[in-house]
Amino acid sequence: MQALLFVKPKPEQLTRLQQQFPAVTFTTDQKAASKAEIVLGWDKSLTAELLANQHLKWVQAKSAGIDYLPLTEFKAKKIILTNASGLHSRYIAETVTSYILMENRGLRAVIKQPKTWLTPASLETREQTALIFGTGKIGCEIARYCHFLGMQTVGVNRHGMDSHLIDVFDQVITTDTFKADGYAASIDFLISTLPGTAQTVHFFNEQMLQQVKPGYTFINVGRGNTLVEADLLKLLDDSWIRSAYLDVFEQEPLPAASPLWRHGKVIVTPHISGQIPHFRAALYPLFANNLDNYLSNKPLYNLVDLQAGY
Amino acid sequence: MQALLFVKPKPEQLTRLQQQFPAVTFTTDQKAASKAEIVLGWDKSLTAELLANQHLKWVQAKSAGIDYLPLTEFKAKKIILTNASGLHSRYIAETVTSYILMENRGLRAVIKQPKTWLTPASLETREQTALIFGTGKIGCEIARYCHFLGMQTVGVNRHGMDSHLIDVFDQVITTDTFKADGYAASIDFLISTLPGTAQTVHFFNEQMLQQVKPGYTFINVGRGNTLVEADLLKLLDDSWIRSAYLDVFEQEPLPAASPLWRHGKVIVTPHISGQIPHFRAALYPLFANNLDNYLSNKPLYNLVDLQAGY
Repeated sequence: MQALLFVKPKPEQLTRLQQQFPAVTFTTDQKAASKAEIVLGWDKSLTAELLANQHLKWVQAKSAGIDYLPLTEFKAKKIILTNASGLHSRYIAETVTSYILMENRGLRAVIKQPKTWLTPASLETREQTALIFGTGKIGCEIARYCHFLGMQTVGVNRHGMDSHLIDVFDQVITTDTFKADGYAASIDFLISTLPGTAQTVHFFNEQMLQQVKPGYTFINVGRGNTLVEADLLKLLDDSWIRSAYLDVFEQEPLPAASPLWRHGKVIVTPHISGQIPHFRAALYPLFANNLDNYLSNKPLYNLVDLQAGY
Repeated sequence: MQALLFVKPKPEQLTRLQQQFPAVTFTTDQKAASKAEIVLGWDKSLTAELLANQHLKWVQAKSAGIDYLPLTEFKAKKIILTNASGLHSRYIAETVTSYILMENRGLRAVIKQPKTWLTPASLETREQTALIFGTGKIGCEIARYCHFLGMQTVGVNRHGMDSHLIDVFDQVITTDTFKADGYAASIDFLISTLPGTAQTVHFFNEQMLQQVKPGYTFINVGRGNTLVEADLLKLLDDSWIRSAYLDVFEQEPLPAASPLWRHGKVIVTPHISGQIPHFRAALYPLFANNLDNYLSNKPLYNLVDLQAGY
């Protein structure tokens, strides 16, 4: 049984895998794309070979979002897909916390007007509410950080409040409720962790962005195609939206010509919110646990619902 | 008895004071500088009148740092000085948290290279240690935020560990120990909250900045004159210091010609770390509590040691 590793292991990580799983041959050789049963990561340039490979049964993605993978083909070929959900959560929460505090402490104005001694407005974090779209691992971790900062947290998901969400969300509403009625109370931050799926494409259009009272800051650490960027720009210019911190974009890298780069109310970061400092040290234990389950026919962690797309 | 308010109260704040303290006449009229017994805040342009006023007995400062006040004259004239220590602590901790997370998530590089899609390095917050100079209210609040982030915290003060510091600092060393032996273990952030006093002037010179192993980030939210800016710049260029987040400067506003503005490893903020969103709502309760104590001859909160200068 071959496992093709697109995330190159450190020598000691490879040794550990070989010792733990003697029945599996681990390789980083791209030629294995046509015969490996297991793939860690993905290489878009090898998609044709990988999908033609009749042995391929399981793909362990290295990311939480998996919208860049050929999900339809996986479904047709009954290829199991697991993602790396959970690994990035705390890092994304740290990034979102830095955005929130930059906004509240006036640092956006300072950054946008370099070399200027100004007195920007500051905001009271403890009076604020965050409306967090997505209550998965990432949304929960963001809510935990928001709670520490003294903020109220409201989650938005498909099913509403659930027992495991009670500790981190003060309230949870459904996406349908939000679509129909919006959110009546004032909020300070709208934070999206939504994955890129058929249901979420362009979810945040002008109408949805106006389902919340004016004056809030929009944060996107989910997927770029969940937002209509032109609508965001319009609402920023209308002052419906106070400011935006965007880590993901419809087109990445964000084109140099995009007005988002130079907008005074927008902070652009280059899809780094979930970057993991010691990535392999985080990914390989997850892979090894899942491989152990795979070989013993136990349920895998982080199984992706190929129909739902996350 | 007159109380001169240099921080203009809101109408309802003035009414509340008048109702609570009928024996005191509250005024914002600068003419009262020559006869008020109590002063809230300070106006440098009226220093001569205020110091010539034989009735002046108590000054309640609106800031935590009081190095801009004529402390020698206060001491000679036995004028009591109280500061606003505590009011700013959480805000400064929020600002320091934004600095730490900006650094760890790679946002400094992003800010310093606008309009560039880059992949900056990220750092693991949970592996980090903060060396915090000053274990007063501000230092403790910073340590509390650092602990939430999963960091180790080491305090530096004049007296070492104390029972009230045990919850927020993993370790406390004395300034004398630091001066003599430095700090042997690696740290990631050196955070100064030191006040501006005769003892702290230029404390952070080349020698002291090298009492810590290379590779750390320097944060100054204390006073600008505690740092030799030229020495910091040298050590940044030598890569002894990884980066610096500076909110205070030897000269404020920071002159346009200062190399700190344009240094790629330095984030300059315009003395805003402790800015309070609803300043009067925070200050007036402190003033009213202290005024109550003053009138009933009880000890005042936040009494400044005019000899020590903080």
